[in-house]
Amino acid sequence: MKNFSIAKSRRLRSTPFTSRIEKQGVTAYTIYNHMLLPAAFGSIEDSYKHLKEYVQVWDVAAERQVEVSGKDSGKLVQLMTCRDLSKSKVGRCYYCPIIDDNGNLVNDPVVLKLDENKWWISIADSDVIFFAKGLAAGNKFDVDITEPVVDIMAIQGPKSFALMEKVFGKKIIELKFFGFDYFDFKGIKHLIARSGWSKQGGYEVYVQNTESGQKLYDQLFEVGKEFNVGPGCPNLIERIESALLSYGNDFDNNDNPFECGFDKYVSLDSDVNFLGKEKLKKIKSEGIKKK
Amino acid sequence: MKNFSIAKSRRLRSTPFTSRIEKQGVTAYTIYNHMLLPAAFGSIEDSYKHLKEYVQVWDVAAERQVEVSGKDSGKLVQLMTCRDLSKSKVGRCYYCPIIDDNGNLVNDPVVLKLDENKWWISIADSDVIFFAKGLAAGNKFDVDITEPVVDIMAIQGPKSFALMEKVFGKKIIELKFFGFDYFDFKGIKHLIARSGWSKQGGYEVYVQNTESGQKLYDQLFEVGKEFNVGPGCPNLIERIESALLSYGNDFDNNDNPFECGFDKYVSLDSDVNFLGKEKLKKIKSEGIKKK
Repeated sequence: MKNFSIAKSRRLRSTPFTSRIEKQGVTAYTIYNHMLLPAAFGSIEDSYKHLKEYVQVWDVAAERQVEVSGKDSGKLVQLMTCRDLSKSKVGRCYYCPIIDDNGNLVNDPVVLKLDENKWWISIADSDVIFFAKGLAAGNKFDVDITEPVVDIMAIQGPKSFALMEKVFGKKIIELKFFGFDYFDFKGIKHLIARSGWSKQGGYEVYVQNTESGQKLYDQLFEVGKEFNVGPGCPNLIERIESALLSYGNDFDNNDNPFECGFDKYVSLDSDVNFLGKEKLKKIKSEGIKKK
Repeated sequence: MKNFSIAKSRRLRSTPFTSRIEKQGVTAYTIYNHMLLPAAFGSIEDSYKHLKEYVQVWDVAAERQVEVSGKDSGKLVQLMTCRDLSKSKVGRCYYCPIIDDNGNLVNDPVVLKLDENKWWISIADSDVIFFAKGLAAGNKFDVDITEPVVDIMAIQGPKSFALMEKVFGKKIIELKFFGFDYFDFKGIKHLIARSGWSKQGGYEVYVQNTESGQKLYDQLFEVGKEFNVGPGCPNLIERIESALLSYGNDFDNNDNPFECGFDKYVSLDSDVNFLGKEKLKKIKSEGIKKK
């Protein structure tokens, strides 16, 4: 296949880690949420083998956050997703398909409950912020909706636990899957979740203090030498092997959640109110036509 | 500046013209509305000079359409834009900043009024469809909102008029700026507007019949030899020279329309109801802080 260059512009935003990964040998980008997302550091096969055995640090700042806060924030977040969040807990991540009025998918983010009235929607590649703003304005909800300065760096691979323990101490090993907490790096608190876009295990650091995040990035490479740390990015081979679906690639706004195998995240029997609920009941009762 | 490859994937959609422009020597892409938009055919300087003197055919399918139809469609489109559309006419294009509840820009599309209850919003690079869906659901509007199969090809440059007259006849020369009408190409009707993302003059063909559109693309290059037709794309040099602003590059959801010099499209004294109206009145009365 012929290679084409990517034409950089302000519209395709760089990340706080872009200059670092370009020194480290990134060779290809994709665009995700209007931002540069590294797609290859040379051979994807080599990167795949490395990821399965060691540890990689990924610039996944393109996983943007939609912050919803205020009195009606819980109501708005619930309205947007077919997953019942009535028993959700602060400090936990939830995989939440976002659904439109027709029962079709808008996005499949991970939702972080920061406190009772503050949520981050960590989005796949579509502008969820405008869906949220439209719904909030139409329903006259008392909420603030912003895209905060948050740039995620992921630490993925079997050696990620040993590496992160060396930097953050034993406490980070106790973090459960899809849990998050705050961890100190040289006097700055970072929100870190046990999550990531591979099945090799690892963490995602939600960097709000950019300067500290960049220092942490460098530190991970310094400390990680003994674990054979390398730069990387979500890996196509690993993603297919692990059956990780992706909005835009594997499904989009023409598909409903049943068609994507998201049945367990569709809480049709709950009391909660969400968009497309009646439509999804109808779709389910009539039988799913494609998978 | 170092070159990086673009990693193609299903998520970055191809257009009906992609295989053609790749044969014609496209060298760089950008991503716009999750789709490939050509960004260079070799030297941007040479392409600029060619555009100013001759005629180019552009694959701008990435200018996607949001189709809003139904009983409340006019109400929804008006709610989304600060431009007074109460006197808008079928067959005309309108440059319409789209504004959120905070008075900030969501997009700056061209809106086509297809009939009293059917509109196309020809969008810049953000997911207006989800803003429209959120607003429609929140307000319980009776509308249908879809992304129709429409792929725009632009014919731009001083010789575009002579070329289009040769293909479509004299009637197309009479089309006024920002007017559109339907023109026959070998038995298939195409919606064609006198518009485009350059100041060199020209047309945009809103291709709904893909096969006929591809034949038209080939025909334009066949017939256009005498006018020195070439492939091309929105040109950075020409855009700067002509002061054509671009959502994402020159302004975004952090800016209000006054800051972008869109004052004449902000109808604060009208009777129409649009989002952010009170907020924009307040901003105007307090004075604009940046430009």
